[in-house]
Amino acid sequence: MTKPMPPSKPETPAPPARIDLANVSELIARMRGGERRAISAVITELERLSAAAPALLQALQPHLGHALVAGFTGPPGAGKSTLVNAVIENLRKQGRTVGVIAVDPSSPISGGAILGDRIRMTAALDDDGVFVRSLASRGYLGGLSPAAVRIIDAMDGAGFDIVLLETVGTGQNEIDVAEVADIRVVISAPGLGDDIQAMKSGLLEIADIMVVNKGDRPGAEQTMQQLLGALSIRATISDKVPVLKTSALNGDGIAELVKALDDIGRRVSQEPAVSRRRRRARYLIARAASDLVAARIKSGGKSSLDTLADGVLSGTMTPDQAAKKVLEG
Amino acid sequence: MTKPMPPSKPETPAPPARIDLANVSELIARMRGGERRAISAVITELERLSAAAPALLQALQPHLGHALVAGFTGPPGAGKSTLVNAVIENLRKQGRTVGVIAVDPSSPISGGAILGDRIRMTAALDDDGVFVRSLASRGYLGGLSPAAVRIIDAMDGAGFDIVLLETVGTGQNEIDVAEVADIRVVISAPGLGDDIQAMKSGLLEIADIMVVNKGDRPGAEQTMQQLLGALSIRATISDKVPVLKTSALNGDGIAELVKALDDIGRRVSQEPAVSRRRRRARYLIARAASDLVAARIKSGGKSSLDTLADGVLSGTMTPDQAAKKVLEG
Repeated sequence: MTKPMPPSKPETPAPPARIDLANVSELIARMRGGERRAISAVITELERLSAAAPALLQALQPHLGHALVAGFTGPPGAGKSTLVNAVIENLRKQGRTVGVIAVDPSSPISGGAILGDRIRMTAALDDDGVFVRSLASRGYLGGLSPAAVRIIDAMDGAGFDIVLLETVGTGQNEIDVAEVADIRVVISAPGLGDDIQAMKSGLLEIADIMVVNKGDRPGAEQTMQQLLGALSIRATISDKVPVLKTSALNGDGIAELVKALDDIGRRVSQEPAVSRRRRRARYLIARAASDLVAARIKSGGKSSLDTLADGVLSGTMTPDQAAKKVLEG
Repeated sequence: MTKPMPPSKPETPAPPARIDLANVSELIARMRGGERRAISAVITELERLSAAAPALLQALQPHLGHALVAGFTGPPGAGKSTLVNAVIENLRKQGRTVGVIAVDPSSPISGGAILGDRIRMTAALDDDGVFVRSLASRGYLGGLSPAAVRIIDAMDGAGFDIVLLETVGTGQNEIDVAEVADIRVVISAPGLGDDIQAMKSGLLEIADIMVVNKGDRPGAEQTMQQLLGALSIRATISDKVPVLKTSALNGDGIAELVKALDDIGRRVSQEPAVSRRRRRARYLIARAASDLVAARIKSGGKSSLDTLADGVLSGTMTPDQAAKKVLEG
């Protein structure tokens, strides 16, 4: 059942802008004034990487670097959306503004967001201090669209204090969000079976904050203890990872979670905004380069590759050694 | 909170063999006779890629190509382990032998398998027709160890009829198992929230069989319908993906799942064994090459990369275009 990776898209010229290119600075001013239609228009142009994108991004430059980007990831059933909503509510009560990028791992075949009609975050929709944009994930087993990085810039440039990047913890999504966010929040919950522990052990390496949501349920304390035990293994690492128990439904622990975000946010802010942005862009480039190399190996000169493959199969070389030969050409 | 990827391991010579290299053919004969200590010894040498590995793999060549490799993946809470156990039981009642590779996504820091002590599959341990090997996943956010491909060969060479590759559906694990297995079974369950639908939409592209486990629970029918609806989107694809309802606890649907595995297995067997094995090796090489490229970009010449990163950030080039420039040198 060999199903090849979808081929990388052919290069296409930038799609035409839907905004008036002569009025970019006016549009940015309206967006910074909080006009929702202007925010939406800028995000859409950047998402499409239209012909207006370079001018918009240039006009945004002086306004970038204020927002913190917090990634929320975790397995299905951890109550991620409800938790994110509770965090938004807490931030809004403090008068802080929030941009939300909700990543829908949609089918690359359908092209659209299967979850488009879910009725979450309806409360937020009436609030000018919150702006939500759904974003389809791309291609093979998900993966964050490069557009996310530009939408982060748009929300940052619009003046939002914090951008929440919410994604289902699966496949490439999880890896990408870990790389793109300034702060990584990993969410779990009791009652998801012993796999949850396995899952967390991989995520332990990258979490800045661990949350046990549904903390009012039986087994929450046990899940906390397992996590703390697993974290003690990385005791040699200097930065201590907070493990917080929350209940998004009754609000327990939400204030503590926001405080933990702020504590880490203060450290993050010491890194210049340009270097945080360049880190995101370098990751996108690295990811694209990896995809290109993988595609070349899958499609490329079969006979020499078969020789290397046979070497790996016969134990005379490791995949790393074969890969080096491929890259050397 | 920039945490760099762990550096790739330095090249090391093959570790010394723990078996007598003069007796390789005798060891293979004992393994093929069903002697468990011999099977275990061969697997261990191949897992370690010891100095004995090339001789062992060469001695195995005439015996390879019989086993089907079925990957089982799904989110925490889907009841994956229980389902795999029920499948093993069904296969054993038919007199068929089963190798199991259980991937533990262990911490790259601890190096060991955090779940090492879980007490599953105890029934299988007293049965000579079943052989279970746990395998730590490697490095960053999981990912299948290249050793899995060699262990598949060992189990195939030992004469097992089917090899089950079981992994938690998260991060790189999920992607790797999809590429390495001959048949991909994606497991879900009711009651995991609306994220489960999102998760499946990504996995739809690669599943050969979809299973709704815990089929006796409320909501199972609804989950089935959602899946069928989502699958109807890929109606243009000729191969029909079966959606099966199972209850691993009371045995419902297990026979149908095994029948579906056999149906697809017959198609898979038409592909020559050597090309299935080379496909696995090519994937390992592609993955290693991607990691190498990513590592070079992360560590490499900062100033030219920053120029490309700024191009991506300013919208004047896409990550794909920047990646092409990087690969061109």
